Amino acid sequence: MSEFGPEWDALELRLRELAEFRRIAALLAWDQHTTMPRRGSDARARAIATIRVVQHERQTDPALGDLLQRIDTGRLDRPRAAMLRIARRDHDRAIRLPADLIRRLAFTASRGEAAWELARPARDFGILQPFLTEMVALKREQADLMGHDGERYDALLDVFEPGLRAAYVAPLFELLAADLRRLLDAIAAAAPLPGILNGRLHPAPGQWRFTMRVLADLGFDLDAGRQDRSAHPFSTTIALRDVRVTTRVDEADPFSAVFSIIHEAGHGMYDQGFDPAFEDTPLAEAPSLGAHESQSRLWENIVGRSLPFWEHYAPVMGELVGGSLVGAGAQDVFRHVNRVTPSLIRVEADEVTYNLHVLVRFELERALMREELSVAELPEAWNDAYMRRLGVRVPHDGDGVLQDVHWSEGLFGYFPTYALGNLYSAMLWRRISTDLPDIGADVGAGRFEPLLGWLRDHVHTPGYLYNTGELMLRATGSELTHEPFMDYLWEKFGPLYGVSGARA
Amino acid sequence: MSEFGPEWDALELRLRELAEFRRIAALLAWDQHTTMPRRGSDARARAIATIRVVQHERQTDPALGDLLQRIDTGRLDRPRAAMLRIARRDHDRAIRLPADLIRRLAFTASRGEAAWELARPARDFGILQPFLTEMVALKREQADLMGHDGERYDALLDVFEPGLRAAYVAPLFELLAADLRRLLDAIAAAAPLPGILNGRLHPAPGQWRFTMRVLADLGFDLDAGRQDRSAHPFSTTIALRDVRVTTRVDEADPFSAVFSIIHEAGHGMYDQGFDPAFEDTPLAEAPSLGAHESQSRLWENIVGRSLPFWEHYAPVMGELVGGSLVGAGAQDVFRHVNRVTPSLIRVEADEVTYNLHVLVRFELERALMREELSVAELPEAWNDAYMRRLGVRVPHDGDGVLQDVHWSEGLFGYFPTYALGNLYSAMLWRRISTDLPDIGADVGAGRFEPLLGWLRDHVHTPGYLYNTGELMLRATGSELTHEPFMDYLWEKFGPLYGVSGARA
Repeated sequence: MSEFGPEWDALELRLRELAEFRRIAALLAWDQHTTMPRRGSDARARAIATIRVVQHERQTDPALGDLLQRIDTGRLDRPRAAMLRIARRDHDRAIRLPADLIRRLAFTASRGEAAWELARPARDFGILQPFLTEMVALKREQADLMGHDGERYDALLDVFEPGLRAAYVAPLFELLAADLRRLLDAIAAAAPLPGILNGRLHPAPGQWRFTMRVLADLGFDLDAGRQDRSAHPFSTTIALRDVRVTTRVDEADPFSAVFSIIHEAGHGMYDQGFDPAFEDTPLAEAPSLGAHESQSRLWENIVGRSLPFWEHYAPVMGELVGGSLVGAGAQDVFRHVNRVTPSLIRVEADEVTYNLHVLVRFELERALMREELSVAELPEAWNDAYMRRLGVRVPHDGDGVLQDVHWSEGLFGYFPTYALGNLYSAMLWRRISTDLPDIGADVGAGRFEPLLGWLRDHVHTPGYLYNTGELMLRATGSELTHEPFMDYLWEKFGPLYGVSGARA
Repeated sequence: MSEFGPEWDALELRLRELAEFRRIAALLAWDQHTTMPRRGSDARARAIATIRVVQHERQTDPALGDLLQRIDTGRLDRPRAAMLRIARRDHDRAIRLPADLIRRLAFTASRGEAAWELARPARDFGILQPFLTEMVALKREQADLMGHDGERYDALLDVFEPGLRAAYVAPLFELLAADLRRLLDAIAAAAPLPGILNGRLHPAPGQWRFTMRVLADLGFDLDAGRQDRSAHPFSTTIALRDVRVTTRVDEADPFSAVFSIIHEAGHGMYDQGFDPAFEDTPLAEAPSLGAHESQSRLWENIVGRSLPFWEHYAPVMGELVGGSLVGAGAQDVFRHVNRVTPSLIRVEADEVTYNLHVLVRFELERALMREELSVAELPEAWNDAYMRRLGVRVPHDGDGVLQDVHWSEGLFGYFPTYALGNLYSAMLWRRISTDLPDIGADVGAGRFEPLLGWLRDHVHTPGYLYNTGELMLRATGSELTHEPFMDYLWEKFGPLYGVSGARA
């Protein structure tokens, strides 16, 4: 028996088992996206649904609820008090959802994803529409069962960003949009930056070697993780010492693989960095997806699109990847990877326009949940929003509403976390620049240990010991704000484009 | 509701869920052996144990036992009556085993396998000994809990070869050993066959292309399966349409990959051939491992080591694999792949000596279960048995008792199924040669559909509709016997070595 009492020990066993189910589901999904044979998809949908149902049964077990009530909180230390808080919340949320809904959600997600994989290349929203209609109905049902104060979307958002409300974040996003618009207008009036891709192909093996090199350099532990190819890059955690990242390789654009792998490495290093003492407990998680995304964005954009980074890597990439990269200097690459253009595709967007893509999705999914918008109306609403927010015309649904898999998989309330990640990453970077005055020189020399060490101490190791707001306040001294992000953008893009100004 | 009644429908749902858990465990194991990062093994052991425990809970659920009793058997058709019989047996067996034993077995198996992976290259039995000692104790406990008539080994054998008893099979094996010894002595007195490997290396990519070609030619559906590399070749079934085979590639010996993949394809095509109407039910299984092995052995040895096979493939292999194969004729390869030499390693053994390797393991594991032998005594007993059965001296444990992973994983009672597979494969081949008089010409032309079609009809599609004895009786007209196998060996190796004789 531990010092925390027999009831705690029984609870911890249950919490560890619940973590196992999440891990197993993660492996089923990883395999589905990287290695599973084509004809295996129906059976895989059933397997994932089965695991979700078992997980839900365990999560809603009345004996667990009983334990959660009986624990003597006075005996717990701080980490275990945090675990208990998380476990109670998860149990309370789960008991509101019947097993049948869980099964239908998992099954519709797998089927919806398969439909999306056909619909996107066919540019045919009609293929996806029945699955998405079913999914939206299920998510509305789920949100109502989980409970909310009139804003159904909040229940879904809370799953990914605990405590955040749509009514709080929407005005912040509009302030951000206005500031971004000002910067974007200034850039639009300036001369465009030159690109360096000259139409030559960059064979996949060289790109692969370069991304493996970058992964290892940044600090991603390849004995406790791996990299694979997939259609859509992602990272997933099978265990603390089994964290997997994927990338896509585009022979016409070698930066696609590079930035996707730096991004995913940011996620992966976070999950490799939790305190091993809390492996398989609720503490070995990020407190929110926004916190998680702060890491991927910090590495991808603030580090990976910086001049020092390319001072180190431009010659390495030229040597390993060849093609357009041969002889390209750091400044050439720096300008190339920071070209700003309002575009159609979120995952290809630059740092200035990226959040506007997110805002489109946020307003549309919120409207779907409010029943102000139907799935049938979604493509047109999407196209209107892109014209309004980004000033671009969507030529077909493949480059429009079908571009992301998220909604097909039931991920509503997820997109805002991308924008929050950007804001948090700039908040963190402001503090890092003070704490690590040599960070520019370090990155320029390919030394990432000081940065990774800082992030380990201030973000990774605590895991879910604090909620996101408290974690960020401890790490940065600040509440959520878009100001450091706008300052960062102006400081970088002002000189690049020869424009001046500042946030309002 | 189906025509079989609401209780049947409820039962079938439960049986399908049980099948899902087996599939999920299969994926966890496949990933562990092919892709998992090195440091992921501890967590994987816990994940597999967790799935095994859930599977066991469901399998032993009193509500399932109640359903199994209440089913109105008069309403069932033949397939469903078979399902019920299997389901009752599995439930009855499972309720004898406490969940804690299941967890310890799964955990010790994962840990034992990891220890084996260190022990074999280190040639150090001491690394494995504590894990194997624990495993043997657990298997004795398991056997006693499952029940037996004094021969503890029977309880374990029954899991893999339902209905077979050690006291029945041991005398058959000794008859087989005596007959094999007679053939082996005749061959030992004859001139050895020439080999064709000339010391050149055969790069892995060419070997890979050749094995993929063979896989597709034989009829393995690569849209419903895949091939990967692993240290130890195996096949596993994630779903009816997701069947995975692995091979090892040895650049010094290209036949290693070829025969391992023909063998695994034999297993894989069996599992792709079950009746889709019974997907995820107990009928979508082979009735025993001996039946399963009859397929891998038939393809690997009777087809893959035949002269017609190499009339078709010698030029293809020469072109794709190169090296020693360039210009090798069918007769050259035929003789090369049929050289007979008593050796140390089971998986490299020829058809004449292979079963003697199995007999060593059978007698040792039976002695372990009878407590006539301890794990500490195992290496010496192994070496003695190899001298006695095969006349070879074992130089170190890496090429001796440590060569197979099976015991480390808890697979006791498993090895005899390899020998049974050989006997069944020859029984089947005798009948196939009558039913398909052109089979030699077909194989010589690379036409495998007639053979696969015959196996689909007579072995694969029925799945577990019959037990192994009945399945083989229907397919071959014969009870289990070693005579067709010995006739096959004499007919093949007599002319090859210029020796004559026959079984006694």
